[in-house]
Amino acid sequence: MSNTPLKGAAVIGQSGGPSAVINASAYGVIKTALESEYITKVYGMHHGIKGMLNDELLIMDEEDPKELERLLYTPSSALGSCRYKIADPDVDDTDYKRILEIFKKYDIRYFFYNGGNDSMDTCNKISKYCQKVGYECRVMGIPKTIDNDLFGTDHCPGYASAAKYIATSCMEVYKDATVYDNPQITVVEIMGRHAGWLAGAAALATAFGAGPDLVYLPEVDFDLETFSADVERVYKANGGKVLIAVSEGIHYADGRFVSEAETSATDGFGHAQLGGLAVKLADYLKKRTGAKVRGIELSLLQRCGAHLASGVDLAEAELAGRAAVEAAVSGKTDYMVAFKCSREGGKYVCETELLPLSEVANYEKKVPLEWINADHNGVTQEFIDYVLPLIQGAPERPTEQSLPRYAKLKKVLAK
Amino acid sequence: MSNTPLKGAAVIGQSGGPSAVINASAYGVIKTALESEYITKVYGMHHGIKGMLNDELLIMDEEDPKELERLLYTPSSALGSCRYKIADPDVDDTDYKRILEIFKKYDIRYFFYNGGNDSMDTCNKISKYCQKVGYECRVMGIPKTIDNDLFGTDHCPGYASAAKYIATSCMEVYKDATVYDNPQITVVEIMGRHAGWLAGAAALATAFGAGPDLVYLPEVDFDLETFSADVERVYKANGGKVLIAVSEGIHYADGRFVSEAETSATDGFGHAQLGGLAVKLADYLKKRTGAKVRGIELSLLQRCGAHLASGVDLAEAELAGRAAVEAAVSGKTDYMVAFKCSREGGKYVCETELLPLSEVANYEKKVPLEWINADHNGVTQEFIDYVLPLIQGAPERPTEQSLPRYAKLKKVLAK
Repeated sequence: MSNTPLKGAAVIGQSGGPSAVINASAYGVIKTALESEYITKVYGMHHGIKGMLNDELLIMDEEDPKELERLLYTPSSALGSCRYKIADPDVDDTDYKRILEIFKKYDIRYFFYNGGNDSMDTCNKISKYCQKVGYECRVMGIPKTIDNDLFGTDHCPGYASAAKYIATSCMEVYKDATVYDNPQITVVEIMGRHAGWLAGAAALATAFGAGPDLVYLPEVDFDLETFSADVERVYKANGGKVLIAVSEGIHYADGRFVSEAETSATDGFGHAQLGGLAVKLADYLKKRTGAKVRGIELSLLQRCGAHLASGVDLAEAELAGRAAVEAAVSGKTDYMVAFKCSREGGKYVCETELLPLSEVANYEKKVPLEWINADHNGVTQEFIDYVLPLIQGAPERPTEQSLPRYAKLKKVLAK
Repeated sequence: MSNTPLKGAAVIGQSGGPSAVINASAYGVIKTALESEYITKVYGMHHGIKGMLNDELLIMDEEDPKELERLLYTPSSALGSCRYKIADPDVDDTDYKRILEIFKKYDIRYFFYNGGNDSMDTCNKISKYCQKVGYECRVMGIPKTIDNDLFGTDHCPGYASAAKYIATSCMEVYKDATVYDNPQITVVEIMGRHAGWLAGAAALATAFGAGPDLVYLPEVDFDLETFSADVERVYKANGGKVLIAVSEGIHYADGRFVSEAETSATDGFGHAQLGGLAVKLADYLKKRTGAKVRGIELSLLQRCGAHLASGVDLAEAELAGRAAVEAAVSGKTDYMVAFKCSREGGKYVCETELLPLSEVANYEKKVPLEWINADHNGVTQEFIDYVLPLIQGAPERPTEQSLPRYAKLKKVLAK
């Protein structure tokens, strides 16, 4: 860490799965960097770290400021994303040599990377490599993941907007799925392979009077018999109407994902199916109850539902980007921006703090077991109290003929 | 038809699949009826015509006017819906005798029924029966169907909100599905068994810069080889990124639905699958191209997405309900309220008119073949010009902690 002003170019990359507000973080970085007297030029990596390796950098200084501002309301990664796991530099330093070459070519002294666990690992490795070879570059990670599983931060930008999409959609599906006087079982499948933050958000809908009767998270083992008994109890109590939310990552005690479990006489499923988990469970319940069933997978919709983005999430995503640049310019390096929040007395306060990258990279934060109810088919009030402040607010979004108006970037390639 | 003022109670029923604005029509009926000097009491059928047959009528006069107003923003059928095909009275008049009994019990002189083709048929039969037995009751049908397939009206309440949901979602999915630099084929499945109005709305997303490359409607035969060639052409031109929208009702030339087609060596599919059409087509394209694929079914979400409801649709749905009551009170009976619209010079004007029930019941309105492009993989500008005015406007909706606040009805049963 140095307090000496460092002059040079900055580069921002987006990595991993997109979110509704990932571009708000990019905007926070780009705008703050463009305004900084120490940052000489601002580049965007075309498709994340692959853009570095391929020498494909986009010149942000060339973009129309009005279009850049529309990044706030544009879902998914406007610069392009990638899923690229960088090697361990002690094993293979090819990529690092190449990155250093590009750093030198464009005099890059500020490296901002926006992503989840893997991205923080990438940041950490690049930072360590630069230190090792004596190239001064300030490296900052900016959290982003709808999965909300980054360690050390109260929550991650992107999560709240997905949670709000899930809660709102569950309320609407509840209204639709309970409209007839016939039995109907509806299963909604929600993202989250290892952590149940997103599936748990479905319980917000229930807390507001129109949501799933049962919610299953991947933090606890799934048992088909217990599940069947849960459903039958609700079925009887509610005149055959049951709404169920499941995380895509629910798994049996032996670790097998329910979504991938093989056909067998014992697990009660019919034939191997290509349809997802929701359809699979719905079909199982159809055979068991004879009710009309429907499986709904929220799929990409929950990840990119910018039209329902949370105002809090949007503002915090931008804040995280801004804070990263400010910290780097002030001399910090090798950190991830994190959120430290208080919800005391129902008042939500959120501040940024910096966490060493080495402490956050590659750890997964799961839903605490005490936030899952005793029957393992729902969440507790603590979970609701945690997520509710995060989904507040609905910013006015630019539209054109009542459809979203997204940022249109020129994407001028640096040479 | 009579111009004599008719005094008595009114009843409103909702039938068939719900929509985002069906309750706006109910509100239009209920509010206008409550204010009418000729209507003595306003009842709601609990689960449509089945509520009549079961003597389950809800007293709307007992509801809090503020909660009734929230019906405007509450998706799905607040009174409950049904799918009940009433018999031909010449074959079996049991139901009609029962309905007449209930009419007499509550002195019902105004009958309003909100639904699609089947509901208009129900209206027509009840009206004819009342005339036959000499019971004076004014019967009015109010159109409602997201499928937009009712005959004689420019469009149907409910359609535009679903169309807007589809277009917006396709724009967001496009952003998400094109974010990596790897090939990815995404197939979005849209409702509409026989008419392609909803699937065609996906082309709005394309018209605004972020939508499907290919759109398939059920008005024309689907051919797997032509489809494959279409996809491969886009695949090559777009670096492996293809977004496809299909109507659930696409079918082969021999009439078989693609979604239900049996496994065979000739149709190119693998094993029979329970997943829907989108997954089936995506899997087929995966085998053919090796690309990463994803099938997304918009499912119930497109039908009940009230948070994205069109302001025009909402206002027109309420207008249709109000117009039905006003016409009935003024002496009209045996009509459906329809919309007569002009789009001349880019100016959209919509007026209600009355069509005899016998002329609209049981006909299906499909997308005109000249609005489908020559390659049968998209729609023409005429289609866009038709639908664009309908999706305009976004009313401010009541929320509670940034989640939807729906109407809470007491549902007091009449005795």
